[in-house]
Amino acid sequence: MDSSFYKFVLASSEEHKKRCLPSISIDCVIFGFHKNQLKILLLNAYDSNEWGLPGGYVGKEEDIDYSANRILEERTGAKNIYLSQFKTFGKTNRSESFFDKFPDDLWHKQRFISIGYYALIDYENVSPVKDEFSELCEWKNIDDTPTLMMDHQVIFNKALEQLRVDLNYKPVGHNLLPEKFTMPELQKLYEVILGKKLNRGNFYRKMKRFGILNKLDETRKGGAHKAPDLYSFNQENYNNALNYGFQEIW
Amino acid sequence: MDSSFYKFVLASSEEHKKRCLPSISIDCVIFGFHKNQLKILLLNAYDSNEWGLPGGYVGKEEDIDYSANRILEERTGAKNIYLSQFKTFGKTNRSESFFDKFPDDLWHKQRFISIGYYALIDYENVSPVKDEFSELCEWKNIDDTPTLMMDHQVIFNKALEQLRVDLNYKPVGHNLLPEKFTMPELQKLYEVILGKKLNRGNFYRKMKRFGILNKLDETRKGGAHKAPDLYSFNQENYNNALNYGFQEIW
Repeated sequence: MDSSFYKFVLASSEEHKKRCLPSISIDCVIFGFHKNQLKILLLNAYDSNEWGLPGGYVGKEEDIDYSANRILEERTGAKNIYLSQFKTFGKTNRSESFFDKFPDDLWHKQRFISIGYYALIDYENVSPVKDEFSELCEWKNIDDTPTLMMDHQVIFNKALEQLRVDLNYKPVGHNLLPEKFTMPELQKLYEVILGKKLNRGNFYRKMKRFGILNKLDETRKGGAHKAPDLYSFNQENYNNALNYGFQEIW
Repeated sequence: MDSSFYKFVLASSEEHKKRCLPSISIDCVIFGFHKNQLKILLLNAYDSNEWGLPGGYVGKEEDIDYSANRILEERTGAKNIYLSQFKTFGKTNRSESFFDKFPDDLWHKQRFISIGYYALIDYENVSPVKDEFSELCEWKNIDDTPTLMMDHQVIFNKALEQLRVDLNYKPVGHNLLPEKFTMPELQKLYEVILGKKLNRGNFYRKMKRFGILNKLDETRKGGAHKAPDLYSFNQENYNNALNYGFQEIW
C-alpha cells in the first residue's frame, strides 16, 4: 500500500468521526436495466482485487433516506430515483478485512449496522463514478457477478429477492421503458427481472387489474405484424402503488 | 420526578454506554391475536402519560435479530416467535422528549436510528412485563390505541401496513390457531388482520394454491351444521414460505 493512500485513509477517518453517525452504514444495490439486460453496479477496491457494493455513511444531520440518495447520486449522477429500503444487516461478524493494516480506532474498522437500499435505473442514462477507496466502478451482468467482499453477496441476494417479491405489489418500469410502450415490452422487463418466462394472458390480466396503465389511442407503426397497442403509465396511480402497494384482492 | 428515578436513569446511561452500540435502537411492534381480536402491546412511560412501543438497544456483541428477540422475550416471555424486520426509521427529528430534563450526554438523548420489527403472537399465552422506564405494559385494541410518543405512530402504522402486505406472500396463523382448524377460522384470522371481509371462494382457492395446508381425514363434530373439514399447516412448506415468500404465479 503506498503511503499517500495510507495517509488519505487516516484523514478520511478523522473527517468521518466529525461528520457521521457511528456504527451505521448504508449499502446500495443499484440495478441497471437497458434493452432487456439487467446489471448491477459494483466497485473494485483500491490495491486489492475485491468487489463490493457502493456504500457510505449517515451524516449527523442527514435523514437516512437522504444519505442513500446522496450515495446513489455520487456513484451515478442519477437524481430523483426511487430508492427502496429493503433490509438492515446487523450480524456481528460482518467485518471489513480491507482495513486490517490500519489502527484499531480507524473509523472504518468499527462495527457497522448497514441499511440496504435498492434502486433500478436505466444504465445507459448514467455514468458510474468510483469512490475514493476504489479503482473501478462498473456494471456487471446480474448472472455473472464476481465474488463480493464481506456480506455483500448476502445483501445483493436479498435485494434481488426483494425486487422480485416487490414486483407482486409495486409497479416497475418508469424511467426504464420509453414513455409509450407495448405490453410485450413491459412483459419483457418483468421477465428479465424475474429471470423467467411469463404467460402472456396472465400477465396482461394482472397488469390491467393493477390500474397503472393508460391505453393510448395510437398503435406503433412500422412493423411487419399488426401494429401493437401503446400504453403509458398513469403516473398518479403508479406513485400511489409505489408508496402503498397494490391493493391485492383476497 | 423523584430523585431515585433520576439517579437510576444516569446509572442506566453509563451502563448502556459500556454495553451497547451507539446510535442504534430497536422498536418492536408486537401484535397480539386471540379469538378474533387484534391488539398491540404498548408501554406507558414513567412519570408522564405517554404511550410508546417496546424497544431497546443492540449489545456490542449481539446480532440485531438476537437483540429484537431478546426485547420481545423481556416484554412478553415469548420465545421462538417469528420476528419480521420491516423497516428502519432514521429521520433526524425523531427525538425523545421524555429525557429533556437530563444532561445532554445522557445515552438515551443521542440521535438513534431505529430498526423496526413486528411479531404476531397469541396474547392469551403471554404476560406483559413493563421495562424500567415504564409504569404499565398493556395490550390495546388495534383500532383504539392512545396517541403514541415520538414517531411511534409512524412505526406502528408502517408495521400494520407491512403485516397486511405480507399476508399476500407470507403465511400466518401458526401459534395463533389451534393445531387443527377449519377454513372459516383461518379466513376469520385474515379478516381481522386485514380489517375487512373476504370472499369465501377466492380465499379458499388462494390458500389452496399456497400449498401450506394439509387437509385432514377428520371433520369437527358437534355443531348444528354439516361437520366442517379440518386442516393443519404443512410445517415444511409453511417455514419455506415464511423465509422465501410464496412463489407467486405471474
